[in-house]
Amino acid sequence: MDKIEHIGIAVKNLADSSLVYQKILGVKSYKKEIVESENVTTEFFKIGEAKIELLQATNKDSAIIKFIEQKGEGIHHIAFEVKDIYAEIKRLKSEGFKMINETPKLGADNKLICFVHPKSTNGVLIEICQEID
Amino acid sequence: MDKIEHIGIAVKNLADSSLVYQKILGVKSYKKEIVESENVTTEFFKIGEAKIELLQATNKDSAIIKFIEQKGEGIHHIAFEVKDIYAEIKRLKSEGFKMINETPKLGADNKLICFVHPKSTNGVLIEICQEID
Repeated sequence: MDKIEHIGIAVKNLADSSLVYQKILGVKSYKKEIVESENVTTEFFKIGEAKIELLQATNKDSAIIKFIEQKGEGIHHIAFEVKDIYAEIKRLKSEGFKMINETPKLGADNKLICFVHPKSTNGVLIEICQEID
Repeated sequence: MDKIEHIGIAVKNLADSSLVYQKILGVKSYKKEIVESENVTTEFFKIGEAKIELLQATNKDSAIIKFIEQKGEGIHHIAFEVKDIYAEIKRLKSEGFKMINETPKLGADNKLICFVHPKSTNGVLIEICQEID
């Protein structure tokens, strides 16, 4: 893992939370993006080498709805940047980690993404991601 | 806020979780520290410009015990580095954020730390921290 690429935060109302995070971080968001495969609308803030990603569900099939129902609004996942996502999936599996998706899928912000199951990582949902050239 | 300084993860058993995070991050922890003021033992991993901090309660007064009882193991807080923690507390209060402690206290890793109440930040416990010279 090279660095923390972003931290994903599940929110009910993106417009309201965007203003909150603009105030707390002291910067404006630089991008808003709908990710249809994940049923979310996202908004990104840059902070150092990493990003804060706010996530709002776009429909009732979104994992964000279930997360907020169970745990309330809050930190949803940490994403780590990797150079070769296929090699990293292989490495993690060989170390005994359970992947939610073993084949990378298209995520927000022009990335291939893959999730590690939180049961194998002390309850933390970990995303690994690789920038698409 | 200058950068993400660390992400704090609440765990039940530091020795077990340290091995898990060594495997997932691909690096060994570089420091273990007891923070008496917070009733925790911490262990740190460096990843890019940030750190992952594992937190285990040292006694029943620890906030980590209550957190795990309520939410299970998982991400406990995000810490942002600031240059002047006193100025940042003033700024956040003027923006309407509620601080858990208005006077900075001594945290892990040679830092002055202060927490913003999660009720004002969409359920996210945010720490701001400043390195002690």
